[in-house]
Amino acid sequence: MKPINRRTFSKKLSQGLAGTALVAGMPLACGMQNDKIKKKLGVALVGLGTYSTYELAPSLQETKHCQLAGIVTGSPEKEKVWAEKYNIPKENVYNYENFDRIVNNPAIDIVYVVLPNSMHADFCIRAAKAGKHVICEKPMAVSVTECDAIIQACEKANVKLSVGYRLHSEPYTQEVKRYAKEKPFGAIQYVSADAAYFSRSNPEQWRLNRKLSGGGALMNMGVYAIQSVIYGTGMNPISVKAQEFSTRPDYFKDTDETITAQFEFETGAIGNIMTSHSANINRLFVTSEKGWLELNPANNYGPLSGRTSGGKEIKFPHERQQKLQMDDFSKHILMGTTNIVPGEMGKRDMIIVEAIYQSIKEGGKTIPLDLGTMGIVS
Amino acid sequence: MKPINRRTFSKKLSQGLAGTALVAGMPLACGMQNDKIKKKLGVALVGLGTYSTYELAPSLQETKHCQLAGIVTGSPEKEKVWAEKYNIPKENVYNYENFDRIVNNPAIDIVYVVLPNSMHADFCIRAAKAGKHVICEKPMAVSVTECDAIIQACEKANVKLSVGYRLHSEPYTQEVKRYAKEKPFGAIQYVSADAAYFSRSNPEQWRLNRKLSGGGALMNMGVYAIQSVIYGTGMNPISVKAQEFSTRPDYFKDTDETITAQFEFETGAIGNIMTSHSANINRLFVTSEKGWLELNPANNYGPLSGRTSGGKEIKFPHERQQKLQMDDFSKHILMGTTNIVPGEMGKRDMIIVEAIYQSIKEGGKTIPLDLGTMGIVS
Repeated sequence: MKPINRRTFSKKLSQGLAGTALVAGMPLACGMQNDKIKKKLGVALVGLGTYSTYELAPSLQETKHCQLAGIVTGSPEKEKVWAEKYNIPKENVYNYENFDRIVNNPAIDIVYVVLPNSMHADFCIRAAKAGKHVICEKPMAVSVTECDAIIQACEKANVKLSVGYRLHSEPYTQEVKRYAKEKPFGAIQYVSADAAYFSRSNPEQWRLNRKLSGGGALMNMGVYAIQSVIYGTGMNPISVKAQEFSTRPDYFKDTDETITAQFEFETGAIGNIMTSHSANINRLFVTSEKGWLELNPANNYGPLSGRTSGGKEIKFPHERQQKLQMDDFSKHILMGTTNIVPGEMGKRDMIIVEAIYQSIKEGGKTIPLDLGTMGIVS
Repeated sequence: MKPINRRTFSKKLSQGLAGTALVAGMPLACGMQNDKIKKKLGVALVGLGTYSTYELAPSLQETKHCQLAGIVTGSPEKEKVWAEKYNIPKENVYNYENFDRIVNNPAIDIVYVVLPNSMHADFCIRAAKAGKHVICEKPMAVSVTECDAIIQACEKANVKLSVGYRLHSEPYTQEVKRYAKEKPFGAIQYVSADAAYFSRSNPEQWRLNRKLSGGGALMNMGVYAIQSVIYGTGMNPISVKAQEFSTRPDYFKDTDETITAQFEFETGAIGNIMTSHSANINRLFVTSEKGWLELNPANNYGPLSGRTSGGKEIKFPHERQQKLQMDDFSKHILMGTTNIVPGEMGKRDMIIVEAIYQSIKEGGKTIPLDLGTMGIVS
């Protein structure tokens, strides 16, 4: 495809090329000149752990609107392996100290922060200051205050911000959202969501260290369960009560093992979630006046599976969720489509996380939530 | 089949006739002489409401080891309709005042009490005093104290006692119990059980009147959810926390509308239940180390439906659950088979119900339970 410059862009758009990969209206803060056109946005992954290695990097080989262009790692060994495997030029490789030099690198448009939770805010803010668009892995941060700081930094720098909620881009979750919106079974009455896996590996992992993770099961799988009751009903909850359970305190010295929570919605619907590092379960069940819908699995990397009352199977072709997610965010940047996972959504979930921990601290007390439509993207 | 008397009974037994319908070892308290043999035990239904009309009476047309022989009703109109429809002789028709005369009626062996919950204890005790075996509809009573009184009355009268938990006799529930026992998927980690329906009919119904029902959703569908976590794990819980939700206080003036509760088990497994009169849901989900099992519906009158991880469908021929239940109890009486739903099971569930109400009253506090293996029948 012949490169398109700013002058020809409007014309091309009117010719129906909006869906192809091109760069338009990129803020100058991005570090590239507007007339310099790329087919795909360059993504730098910050933190090369399991998720980057087995999910994000392979997904970025399949994306249409962005590609793996840079890495940020504290490990010289990973630097070498990744640079070779993904053909990443030396100038696109950073460590945590020299990361801020990324401001001068026009090859990087998006910084995806995949570090332990407590480091999200720092690196997201630095990425924004460097003029890069930001994807912050979930949970967005370890506090609402940090979420606010990230959002403000991105606004100030005029860069786009998203959170690593990959499910909003994949069709099973979109079908759940469609049911919540169109209500083919009538009013939604109850959503049950369980997001948990049994952890028994390395007790030194950062997820078990509150300083790094900010919390246990709730901060890890729990946010998926919270998301489930919200997109399962199409509403934010108006209150939450929560309970904590501990059966392996030797392993979970520092973080929550199992949490249940109940949500009230203004329509009278109830949400009931469980999240745990001591059980294998991954389910979303939405029941309405005249029928129900179920995903199981509901929020792992897929293939997901679903069905409704009346024996209907919910079935879509499987694609890497992260591929869809990063392409959606790239289209938001490139073509001005809706940001389906804005920073506000991550902040809203952190408000709920903090309310859940508060409820537990106060013996299961009902914590009112005043979220309005915060983070709801229809 | 030629009648069998006491002298020929042992011989017939050794010839393999134990599975046929016969009467042996009936206590004299039953009102019949031991040598007078019946093919089927006579059942009297006390209370001719919806459940008797549409479930129990039709089931008693299909039972092998018992049959509808008598009725107890306060309605002369129902007397007439039932007597005609089911060919019930005048001497087997009672009202609530003359009910105790049933002591002299050898046609009645079992009294099934299907009255509003608050009347269970009174009529079960009177039935026991009349020397009749007793089936008490669930929930067993409105307090543990009443459960104890029923159990003691039956022990004193040397009559058998069961509770109307029809599911223990049907194959889907038995399959859940088999999984809990044999653990083909390894240790059970989590059971989620939701038992609820949306009630909007007659606001004058007894279920909405605490004096008659003893409570709302929890006393009605809730005991199924409690049962589910117990037979789903094969264990009694060691603690419970609970929460209550209200969205239609005008309709639920007097009884609980929606309750959630969480159970701990000594193995570390967790149970999470929801019961409601404001949602349609009827599910049991059991997850273990290596797989899961699900029934949906799990506890309505069927046909039930189930599946496991790995895509296996759980499928059994459908029969009326109440037919199986009443035949099982009759076999217990006639042939000394295990009483799979003893009075203790109903009492245990009432202990849990009281603990749930207590937890709610105390703001969601954890209530310890010391049940041992009470009511567990393997």
